[in-house]
Amino acid sequence: MGKNRQLRLGATIHGVGSSHTAWRHPQIPSDASVNISFYTQQAQKAEEGKFDFVFIADGLYINEKSIPHFLNRFEPITILSALGAATSRIGLVGTLSTSYSEPFTVARQFASIDQISGGRAGWNVVTSPLEGTALNFGGRPHPAHSERYRIAEEYLEVVKGLWDSWEDDAFVRDKESGVFFDPDKLHRLNHEGEFFSVQGPLNIARSRQGQPVVFQAGSSDSGRSLAAKTADAVFTGPETIEEAKAFYRDVKQRAAALGRAPEEILIFPGIGPIVGRTEEEAERKYQEIAGLVTIEKALEYLGRYFEHHDFSQYPLDEPFPDLGDFGSNSFRSTTDRIKRRAKEENLTLREIALQEATPRTVFIGTPEKVADVVQQWFEEEAADGFIIGSGVPGGLDDFVELVVPILRERGLFRTEYEGDTLRGNLGLPVPENRYTKQKALS
Amino acid sequence: MGKNRQLRLGATIHGVGSSHTAWRHPQIPSDASVNISFYTQQAQKAEEGKFDFVFIADGLYINEKSIPHFLNRFEPITILSALGAATSRIGLVGTLSTSYSEPFTVARQFASIDQISGGRAGWNVVTSPLEGTALNFGGRPHPAHSERYRIAEEYLEVVKGLWDSWEDDAFVRDKESGVFFDPDKLHRLNHEGEFFSVQGPLNIARSRQGQPVVFQAGSSDSGRSLAAKTADAVFTGPETIEEAKAFYRDVKQRAAALGRAPEEILIFPGIGPIVGRTEEEAERKYQEIAGLVTIEKALEYLGRYFEHHDFSQYPLDEPFPDLGDFGSNSFRSTTDRIKRRAKEENLTLREIALQEATPRTVFIGTPEKVADVVQQWFEEEAADGFIIGSGVPGGLDDFVELVVPILRERGLFRTEYEGDTLRGNLGLPVPENRYTKQKALS
Repeated sequence: MGKNRQLRLGATIHGVGSSHTAWRHPQIPSDASVNISFYTQQAQKAEEGKFDFVFIADGLYINEKSIPHFLNRFEPITILSALGAATSRIGLVGTLSTSYSEPFTVARQFASIDQISGGRAGWNVVTSPLEGTALNFGGRPHPAHSERYRIAEEYLEVVKGLWDSWEDDAFVRDKESGVFFDPDKLHRLNHEGEFFSVQGPLNIARSRQGQPVVFQAGSSDSGRSLAAKTADAVFTGPETIEEAKAFYRDVKQRAAALGRAPEEILIFPGIGPIVGRTEEEAERKYQEIAGLVTIEKALEYLGRYFEHHDFSQYPLDEPFPDLGDFGSNSFRSTTDRIKRRAKEENLTLREIALQEATPRTVFIGTPEKVADVVQQWFEEEAADGFIIGSGVPGGLDDFVELVVPILRERGLFRTEYEGDTLRGNLGLPVPENRYTKQKALS
Repeated sequence: MGKNRQLRLGATIHGVGSSHTAWRHPQIPSDASVNISFYTQQAQKAEEGKFDFVFIADGLYINEKSIPHFLNRFEPITILSALGAATSRIGLVGTLSTSYSEPFTVARQFASIDQISGGRAGWNVVTSPLEGTALNFGGRPHPAHSERYRIAEEYLEVVKGLWDSWEDDAFVRDKESGVFFDPDKLHRLNHEGEFFSVQGPLNIARSRQGQPVVFQAGSSDSGRSLAAKTADAVFTGPETIEEAKAFYRDVKQRAAALGRAPEEILIFPGIGPIVGRTEEEAERKYQEIAGLVTIEKALEYLGRYFEHHDFSQYPLDEPFPDLGDFGSNSFRSTTDRIKRRAKEENLTLREIALQEATPRTVFIGTPEKVADVVQQWFEEEAADGFIIGSGVPGGLDDFVELVVPILRERGLFRTEYEGDTLRGNLGLPVPENRYTKQKALS
């Protein structure tokens, strides 16, 4: 680590936002979640700011209480491919669940985005937190939290194996001799495991970056283990710098214990900065968004983390209800945090609900202040970079135009892309093809 | 039918081509199957020619004997999305199998392409002909031909049901009142069938064209029944105008028997025209491609239709071997045709293999001759349109530049897009949302 560390930045493009009410803001196009111009403009803005990647989150289950963005939004594989055609340098990272998909198809779709974009694809691995998802995929019971992570681990083994089906120089393509490929450089995976049986080979080759970058977004103990073992990057959501530093240390240590170098796994807190030219302007922007929240919507929003639990049954101004183990099979790290905080700070249900709906974070303020906090988190090893979320309308534009120039002046962030792939820009190694490696060793 | 019929055109983009050897042609980029510039250029050329759609074929199983294009190619969902961003008017149709995928995911990915492209998506439904596919998807046995079609029929019911989850005016998006959507216009499918259990709703709304256009590509009896019941368009591969007319009549009659209007299901033979400014130039182009074929490769190509059967075990210059029922669970209509033809015309294995590798069709010749045959097939109701394949390098360019102008002069083909969706251009009705319809009736 140390001197050579460079700050990395990603941008979540999230349509009408991650709350029940942000869509009502006058500056947000109310169809943003299915508006291709909006997505293209945001991706191009992030590329103009020399961001490492755009990030598309996802989910596979909705009901009447879901937030507006979830109800009607682009699917990640499709929108990433489209954004690949509309950009030329920025990485394309998207969420896809290992609990409700086929490894052959997912390996292939990300490999194809990687080829289409010249080595800019990344996959954010999730295991699907919501019970209801099972109802859309055959109706078998939703696997329990620990089983989902065992499935994910085997799934990643399969996908990474399929990605190596072709050695990098397998395609000879010699028109003269008629040799299209070298059959010694084509490999069947022949995977037979607890959850998956996949023969291969995959019908697409590796891109210039070798394999798509693997992100992992679960922060529970199982999530951290999986990340340490298999991920190139981790998307996390700490509330404080102490929490972030503890998480950072823990994941890097887990990776080191498995023989990985600390710089081979990058930690990205997701943040929703609200930047104003003055403190007052930033505060006004925060209040504009917070003011749209109703307590009913705040309770619904909170309920989603707890398997769509109905919080309207509890008194609003009494201590946060004791929910026991409830929520531990869905968004475990989030529900644990909420329960802990409510207890430690002795908060009421109303307070928790409103604060979760519009968190007042340390990333609100003038460009200098936000840059200061970014720098502090980065330098104190709470983060290798950040994924900028859509806290307020125009939030990405503000960050690119007001904060990025300061980060550059301070020598923290690039002025031009260093690499020509996502791995190249993130400073991640190109994973050597496993079969090429075996041959070199034998 | 009659006066209002209009010729429709699609273009298959197929990388290095559909033979073992075309990639050796000096004018074909040998990496065409994973070359985004090649795909973009072809799609833009087809759009310049005012084609209705581009078409991306697919397969989910390869082995060492597969043709070069199959070994390493873009995945349809991803390349269609990317081409959607690189074009503005042309339809985007791609193959996806109902035997190895989840209806919720497939409904969502095509709906998302439909939204990204402003109503230009189409899905070519196939059931996966190759036994080996099962090995890449869990290893359960490949379903038999008739079961695959029963699965496909239920699958389409589910997907079309999910596509109607949201009525067209469900999204109110009134910032003033805070009403984002009308819950009476959101519908759960609650499908419980023989093969699928899917609750819904889908997390994406309908596009301007209502639902993506459904193509169907199986020409066996089961394939025709499925098409008559569920498809907007059929991709077929007849050898002669008589065969094409019989197929055309049969599918339209089957549709009529189910109460559908004949113009609601369009028949598209796939053709590989070879156009030269003179007959000699066309013949030279044919010979350039045919001359690249070796008998070994021709036997491998033939073998793929018969579950990768090894034809090298038979004498080349004796009558085509009696294979019994072999091949009837894979590409049934193709293997039936080959067997029938070998018998009727008393052909040897060598003759069949070489002819299948480079068919000498009636679509070879001068622009006028090719236009004549197109016109004849269209006017005699052997076709509602054609899907132009990649017979020879530059084949699409030749067709757009040399044949299309003649078709226009004759009033057969458009000079400008009539509609602003794929359905609009194909003259297909926008399917009314089933729930809106029910309400109107009750």
